[in-house]
Amino acid sequence: MHAYRSHTCADLNKSNVGETVRLSGWVHRVRDHGGLLFIDLRDHYGITQVMADPDSPVFSEIEKVRSEWCIRIDGNVMARDESLVNPKIPTGEIEVFIRDIEVLGASAELPLMVFGEQEYPEETRLKYRYLDLRREKLQRNMAMRSDVVASMRKRMWDLNFREYQTPIITASSPEGARDFLVPSRLHPGKFYALPQAPQQFKQLIMVSGYDKYFQIAPCFRDEDPRADRSPTDFYQLDLEMSFVEQQDVFDTIQPVLTGVFEEFGGGRAVDQEWPQISYKDAALWYGTDKPDLRNPIKMQVVSDHFRGSGFAIFAKLLEQDGTEIRAIPAPKGGSRKFCDRMNAFAQKEGLPGMGYIFWRDQGEGMEAAGPLAKNIGPERTEAIRQQLGLGVGDAAFFLGGKPKAFEGVAGKARVEIGNELGLTDLNRFAFAWIVDFPIYERDEETGKIDFEHNPFSMPQGGMDALDGNPEDVLGYQYDLACNGYELVSGAIRNHRPEIMFKAFEIAGYGKDEVEKRFGGMVNAFQYGAPPHGGCAAGIDRIVMLLADEANIREVIMFPMNQRAEDLMMGAPNDPMNEQLRELSLRVIDPE
Amino acid sequence: MHAYRSHTCADLNKSNVGETVRLSGWVHRVRDHGGLLFIDLRDHYGITQVMADPDSPVFSEIEKVRSEWCIRIDGNVMARDESLVNPKIPTGEIEVFIRDIEVLGASAELPLMVFGEQEYPEETRLKYRYLDLRREKLQRNMAMRSDVVASMRKRMWDLNFREYQTPIITASSPEGARDFLVPSRLHPGKFYALPQAPQQFKQLIMVSGYDKYFQIAPCFRDEDPRADRSPTDFYQLDLEMSFVEQQDVFDTIQPVLTGVFEEFGGGRAVDQEWPQISYKDAALWYGTDKPDLRNPIKMQVVSDHFRGSGFAIFAKLLEQDGTEIRAIPAPKGGSRKFCDRMNAFAQKEGLPGMGYIFWRDQGEGMEAAGPLAKNIGPERTEAIRQQLGLGVGDAAFFLGGKPKAFEGVAGKARVEIGNELGLTDLNRFAFAWIVDFPIYERDEETGKIDFEHNPFSMPQGGMDALDGNPEDVLGYQYDLACNGYELVSGAIRNHRPEIMFKAFEIAGYGKDEVEKRFGGMVNAFQYGAPPHGGCAAGIDRIVMLLADEANIREVIMFPMNQRAEDLMMGAPNDPMNEQLRELSLRVIDPE
Repeated sequence: MHAYRSHTCADLNKSNVGETVRLSGWVHRVRDHGGLLFIDLRDHYGITQVMADPDSPVFSEIEKVRSEWCIRIDGNVMARDESLVNPKIPTGEIEVFIRDIEVLGASAELPLMVFGEQEYPEETRLKYRYLDLRREKLQRNMAMRSDVVASMRKRMWDLNFREYQTPIITASSPEGARDFLVPSRLHPGKFYALPQAPQQFKQLIMVSGYDKYFQIAPCFRDEDPRADRSPTDFYQLDLEMSFVEQQDVFDTIQPVLTGVFEEFGGGRAVDQEWPQISYKDAALWYGTDKPDLRNPIKMQVVSDHFRGSGFAIFAKLLEQDGTEIRAIPAPKGGSRKFCDRMNAFAQKEGLPGMGYIFWRDQGEGMEAAGPLAKNIGPERTEAIRQQLGLGVGDAAFFLGGKPKAFEGVAGKARVEIGNELGLTDLNRFAFAWIVDFPIYERDEETGKIDFEHNPFSMPQGGMDALDGNPEDVLGYQYDLACNGYELVSGAIRNHRPEIMFKAFEIAGYGKDEVEKRFGGMVNAFQYGAPPHGGCAAGIDRIVMLLADEANIREVIMFPMNQRAEDLMMGAPNDPMNEQLRELSLRVIDPE
Repeated sequence: MHAYRSHTCADLNKSNVGETVRLSGWVHRVRDHGGLLFIDLRDHYGITQVMADPDSPVFSEIEKVRSEWCIRIDGNVMARDESLVNPKIPTGEIEVFIRDIEVLGASAELPLMVFGEQEYPEETRLKYRYLDLRREKLQRNMAMRSDVVASMRKRMWDLNFREYQTPIITASSPEGARDFLVPSRLHPGKFYALPQAPQQFKQLIMVSGYDKYFQIAPCFRDEDPRADRSPTDFYQLDLEMSFVEQQDVFDTIQPVLTGVFEEFGGGRAVDQEWPQISYKDAALWYGTDKPDLRNPIKMQVVSDHFRGSGFAIFAKLLEQDGTEIRAIPAPKGGSRKFCDRMNAFAQKEGLPGMGYIFWRDQGEGMEAAGPLAKNIGPERTEAIRQQLGLGVGDAAFFLGGKPKAFEGVAGKARVEIGNELGLTDLNRFAFAWIVDFPIYERDEETGKIDFEHNPFSMPQGGMDALDGNPEDVLGYQYDLACNGYELVSGAIRNHRPEIMFKAFEIAGYGKDEVEKRFGGMVNAFQYGAPPHGGCAAGIDRIVMLLADEANIREVIMFPMNQRAEDLMMGAPNDPMNEQLRELSLRVIDPE
């Protein structure tokens, strides 16, 4: 017999009754039924009930075992009494009478119980991660993460993509976020950096003629802590293709992601139609470039109804350039109580408030209620109702000003309204491509033009477009939104050196600086670069959505805490003097 | 029609004749046949001949294109004249008459030709890696590397292993090689490190109850340059299993590797029987712990034949403790010329030389020739011949002294003899497990006991074994040798804290120091650690063997040069002052 097991703790059933078996695993729970000892023996695969009574030759040893000891037992498989069958687990029909036991690993007193639902502070959970990871939820999440990544790989292979590994120790390249640096020992005073993404390398792979690339790629950014992201690294499904247009990239990644969401979504509906919404429309309709389309609410411009109206605040506002009034329709939100609550929500978010109208049945027909309706009069109110397609029992909220100033809050209010009114279908994954991102944005304070997103995207209209107003230039650049999160980001790249230099020039970067910052890639483009594009999907985020977790640390095997510390391994820690000397470095006191 | 292509450059054949097609790719070669222009258009998939004559509406534009320009053409598929069919390529039956052309990316003058076999200095190849990567050999090697890794993953999944990602930014842990450090910005003066291997994490995954883990894992070591290894990082197929003994690990990895070698070995034979050879026997028989078993030569101890013999050098030597005489049999090596050449080889390697005997037919029967034979006389000579199983036309070489002093050269001589005599079968992958490594070794100079290999291995005999002579303690520790390289290394781990502390104590590490160095893992072992073990296979090395390459840079997409520089991306480079300030670091002049 094998030294440790003849079966796993999920294998045995009625057909094994009478067999002598060997099992290994952890003591999940011990119950003492007056001289009869029952142990739930757990391994990665399941739980088997093993038991002993004083007739067992090793009873006294079994009495000593405690929770989370790792043991090996030999015993006989016995059918459980009909009344004691546990239909919830595959081994519920049997139990094993223990004939022999070996303690493989005893346990000290537990700082964290594996059995049960008790909550522990995150610090405890991370310090004793190896115990926390034994708990059912994390076992399930980690297995799912592994299976999701495997499924992505298989789907990419099926599409004739090959996975190529790009360097993890490379050059610092100021692309946006902060690099992690790695001092070079062989070149004192010089540093490598960990890649923020394989962006430049995957584009170089295209220039190298490989046609289709993907990688489950670790990305490193030294970012300030935030609840929903890892402070050090994250993983992307990164892909790039040559000789493609934007729609080709969409057609490639969509079946991969719908497949993954269907496979692991636990039966939740997965949208098959992915609308393409312009960045501009998304801002108007949803107040965000990552809208949650499970929420059917779509905002509308209603400025005309307020221009010159009796509602002086909005009427005045509209006399200024660049202002608008927008409405958030709220079907079934037609009660003063609800409307007041939403108004308070907007105030909490820093706005003066949201005006509202709601429609109710007053016996003699529909009545529009709320202070706004009174101010603008019945005709305008009715025109608004008709534009928004609302009726009795519904409400609408109004925000005004320069869109940039209120769009964000409008977007949050839309989410709040959708949730409060139960309009948002929680059992669904709703996707939308956000397209036509502007290439540039103007800094409100300095007036300076800079890249809005990624400097490597191809402007729509190519070189000609760059001769006009920079703020009007749109890029072949896209994000995929899912349930309010940005899941994917990508672009058709600017593969023409002359257009790239011009694009950088507009943002204030001279040729020298571009060559210094992105020399590897810009040089490569001089030698017959193909048109190419791609995208990257956030794996941690996808697994969070699938596992229905709000904290990224629930889907990473060994996460850092929010202070970027590994409490289990003790990272970061003090270097040895010898290490610093070899690297020609000295730590200075921060001023 | 698609913007860039209706077919790839490998798709078209006779069945497409008459179709209008669109192709995109690189100008591999242009030939001008007096007004008729032929272009070999190349993409990742293949080559298609496209052509134009002055009747083509775009002839003048086609005349401008040069090697490695990226172009799109439209044209008609035409059958080639029978006599012009090229059976070597799938598209050899057709050519495409160009009707339209678009230059997608022109090329500056090439520093490196893609077409042809010209050799370039490594510096040029690495600086213009994106051009070098377009060449046929690297296209093939990179695709193979990708396919090998994919095949490993599929095979591991089929064995019910899951891939779990372990942290890349973690704690420094002095395990042997030098760490790459990563300064922490949030914790000034503290450093992370890149993992030398996921050793501790994979063991923690076992303690966490995951049973079967694998990972295609990047490993980072700041090592001094050497021709056959990357100076920064390398990849391992890393695996670990719970509740296993050594043979279970062997039985798991063997089918994975034989499968991969059969799939990608290009028809070379793959040994199905993998002998298990003790570390001690490997040293004796092959003079190395990574023997090339394609070479049938096995060394033997022949001390007794020389003890008290007329060959004074060996006879004297044997009077000292710990000395031995060993023979390298050399079937078919029986000529003075060959024997002298091997003797010179040993001298070049720093030994006084190798004595030899060779056997020839002198008409009246066999004669043993060489000075050694004369010195020890015919009886001893004959006894040696019989022990080694040699005959006419064969030779034997002899080395004496303390085995450690000559074993290395003996191993090299064995390889040399095998190659020179054509005994080594080059069309074969021969594997052997080297087992029973000693846990400790004694430093010859200081007399100090230290770990021979990996401090985490379980000593054979457990705690009891540690009470004896440390040098006699063997570990459940193993390497896999293939064709003279170490492909895999692994062990059954020491999962018992008390045995681990004792093992470290013998090597001079106190409990405090062990807890400081390996705290994460040692703490975890207090809480019910399962018996576990595993191994790691070197992926770069495996691909090198399969692709028959001697230089690791031929199987890595973007390798560093031997000075650990990325000449294309310019890494490492000077940090910005701002970056150093954020990290509280100052570069000091090396003394």
